[in-house]
Amino acid sequence: MNNKMIWNIVGRVVRIEAILLLLPLITSIIYTENFSVLAFLITAVIAFILGGLLVFFTKTSNHIIYAREGFVIVALAWISMSIIGSLPFIISGKIPSFIDALFETVSGFTTTGASVVKDVTQLGYGLNLWRCFTHWIGGMGILVFVVAFISKTSDRSIHVLRAEMPGPIIDKITPRSKDTAKIPYLIYSGLTILLIVMLFLGKMPIYDSIVTALATAGTGGFGIYGDSVASFSSYSQWVIAIFMLLFGVNFNVYFLIAIGKFKSAFKSAELKVYILIFVSAVIVVLLNILKTCANFEEALRLSVFQVSSVMTTTGFSTADYNLWSEMAKSTLLMLMIIGGSAGSSAGGLKVSRVMLLFKKIGAEFKRIINPKRVNTIQLEGKRIDEASVSGVTSYFAIYVVLIAIIAFLLSIDGFSFETNLSASIACFNNIGPGFGAVGPIETYASFSPFSKIILMIAMLLGRLEIYPLLIALAPSTWLKK
Amino acid sequence: MNNKMIWNIVGRVVRIEAILLLLPLITSIIYTENFSVLAFLITAVIAFILGGLLVFFTKTSNHIIYAREGFVIVALAWISMSIIGSLPFIISGKIPSFIDALFETVSGFTTTGASVVKDVTQLGYGLNLWRCFTHWIGGMGILVFVVAFISKTSDRSIHVLRAEMPGPIIDKITPRSKDTAKIPYLIYSGLTILLIVMLFLGKMPIYDSIVTALATAGTGGFGIYGDSVASFSSYSQWVIAIFMLLFGVNFNVYFLIAIGKFKSAFKSAELKVYILIFVSAVIVVLLNILKTCANFEEALRLSVFQVSSVMTTTGFSTADYNLWSEMAKSTLLMLMIIGGSAGSSAGGLKVSRVMLLFKKIGAEFKRIINPKRVNTIQLEGKRIDEASVSGVTSYFAIYVVLIAIIAFLLSIDGFSFETNLSASIACFNNIGPGFGAVGPIETYASFSPFSKIILMIAMLLGRLEIYPLLIALAPSTWLKK
Repeated sequence: MNNKMIWNIVGRVVRIEAILLLLPLITSIIYTENFSVLAFLITAVIAFILGGLLVFFTKTSNHIIYAREGFVIVALAWISMSIIGSLPFIISGKIPSFIDALFETVSGFTTTGASVVKDVTQLGYGLNLWRCFTHWIGGMGILVFVVAFISKTSDRSIHVLRAEMPGPIIDKITPRSKDTAKIPYLIYSGLTILLIVMLFLGKMPIYDSIVTALATAGTGGFGIYGDSVASFSSYSQWVIAIFMLLFGVNFNVYFLIAIGKFKSAFKSAELKVYILIFVSAVIVVLLNILKTCANFEEALRLSVFQVSSVMTTTGFSTADYNLWSEMAKSTLLMLMIIGGSAGSSAGGLKVSRVMLLFKKIGAEFKRIINPKRVNTIQLEGKRIDEASVSGVTSYFAIYVVLIAIIAFLLSIDGFSFETNLSASIACFNNIGPGFGAVGPIETYASFSPFSKIILMIAMLLGRLEIYPLLIALAPSTWLKK
Repeated sequence: MNNKMIWNIVGRVVRIEAILLLLPLITSIIYTENFSVLAFLITAVIAFILGGLLVFFTKTSNHIIYAREGFVIVALAWISMSIIGSLPFIISGKIPSFIDALFETVSGFTTTGASVVKDVTQLGYGLNLWRCFTHWIGGMGILVFVVAFISKTSDRSIHVLRAEMPGPIIDKITPRSKDTAKIPYLIYSGLTILLIVMLFLGKMPIYDSIVTALATAGTGGFGIYGDSVASFSSYSQWVIAIFMLLFGVNFNVYFLIAIGKFKSAFKSAELKVYILIFVSAVIVVLLNILKTCANFEEALRLSVFQVSSVMTTTGFSTADYNLWSEMAKSTLLMLMIIGGSAGSSAGGLKVSRVMLLFKKIGAEFKRIINPKRVNTIQLEGKRIDEASVSGVTSYFAIYVVLIAIIAFLLSIDGFSFETNLSASIACFNNIGPGFGAVGPIETYASFSPFSKIILMIAMLLGRLEIYPLLIALAPSTWLKK
């Protein structure tokens, strides 16, 4: 283990966080919120000094990162970021409990959007901007940012990208990993700015437009009002619904569009399946809620919004879907598990992974009938090697086992089965709201501290796609040289 | 496809069913239940003529069975058996609805034990014996019986055994497949007789002893009283609990004991894990229910009984565990999924499959860290080839997907999420009772006919381990030559 290099990169990440904290700091100054001005200032100073010290004391000429180091860096960076990021909530006194503040921050960075704050409006402008900004930072991944714009690490940094970026396969858009990281970030920023403008044009105040756009882009889902985004105008709801869907698309598609390869862009099999799932789910939900709505526009808007929000694992809501029929709820639950596309800011299993899973199931049937025949599996026109395919089914197995274990551990608190399982699924897949006691109009405040810790682990496991956190937590990782 | 051979074997199975129907027929005569004497007589005659005609018209010299034919034979045989087996309920007028009668019979043969009969006592001695006898027949598999004692098919009949016998790997105890099939049946019969004697010695009436033993041996769970087996004496409850556990052990272990290889028998890794899971689950449940019980013996008896019943997928109950704490319920739910050992009469995923799944997950971690290293997986001291291991994760993936789809389809009826998911799990894993509206003191009577059909498919999918039924239902199976 190249320990020096690991902590060096973690130090860089923490130092960047100090800079990122300037945005909520400035916001607090503008709105003259003295309680949070001080909180952000102290936190930024702590982060800057701590990060600086880490970088200073870990100077090394050995820049080599292997897969194991890549996973450990990502896990430690995310945990460090979350601890530092929780300080403003504690120092300001708005979320005095450390566990609660950390829960809120982990939920932010992992783009989950599960909240323990019962009345978000009392947090003020600065802290609410920070909550939504953590979504935006976490959506694309902060290490991608480090690799893209700052780090001098070798091309081995692909290991870091691989560990942090969502989805089963990382497509190197360009041969150099620095560019691989840069391009999605540029697309991400461009789309975010476009969304801010669109919301502002719909007569939304500029502050609301910015924070809502940040939370939407990261597919996070923290709201700044008690009713999530239900009080926004129909126009704004439609805009948000469409943009959530856009942020759940593989950014490769936008890259291909940007360089004029329209044909290749729309040939993406994942995109087609993503749209197919979306349309099917909207139809099922629409048929289920049509009777309870005032008119067709409302039913369509509620269906599109909720499906888009859950499928992209954002977690905004414009309706209390806890009250919907069992069939509509089951549809949403399945969408939570499938999630968005690989290479987007969305969570969940990812559409391409689900596609590979089904292809593997099909191949298994062929193998059962004819064990001697060799069955190859293709995705996006490329043959996927046996180890990667087998990796997808193993990933799914670990995923199911972990969700079951988490739901089991939550059962200690005594909530209903529906609450426990949906909380586990909603946190693991980075959605936020689930069903039952964690439904869209509820919060996670009533869970015990133990359960909150379990749910934080679930969020990190889900966002970092299982391996980094478990490898970093394994004693064997640290005992081996 | 060797269609003649397929229907020839199905014909033989139906003809054997005619003979098996003599047992409940005689019972009905003894207890002078005229309504069921006639019902069994008519059914036996229909089965004998139908089976005879099938065998007669499909005479062929081509006895070769490939894997595909093996699966199709098993699926068709089980469906035919169930349809014929449902006739006594319909003809006697005790379960007039065809869907309900078929549900009860499929539930019987698949050893599920889910019932739609609200008052089982009104069925009488003959029909209740038939219900429990279907468990016994289904527990070991009727095709195993055909291969073992009757069929003249070639050694290729291993394909039929493979398709019907539970568990990921079929160990050929003896080189000839006829003997492979015969030995488990002899062990099965021996244990059943021992159980009848043990129950009878505990002052249970002989009829009750026989039917309860049949339902226990098949790990089925149909009761003949409204409260399952809760009204039996403590002694009987302990005996049943221990025998359920015994019927969930891989029969290879008994074979090894029978031939004096004690060391090999107790070296079985699956046996160790099976016992470990059992003991851990009993402790968790015991701690959860201790406070609500009159004394320690009661708490221990209830824990051991319910854990044993659920883990071996029998489904008997001596307590309404629907009222237990969420943690105790979650423990039972996980046991439902794990199930008993491979090569036993129990259902579920099977312990050895779960072991392989976890070994594969471990190997995947090693692969992620070091993609170039080759990781081999061993079970019971034998190296498992890559295709079989990958087959286990694929099986698990199909299993999870199918359970989710079934729970989703059940949601149309509007029951709670807990009810839908636990009904899907309880039927797929051949347990019987679940939670919520399908808890241990409830029945499946209130589901719609559509849901009942879905649940029958679930039971058959689970009992036949997915592939046979899906391959038989696939149009491509019948279009290909």
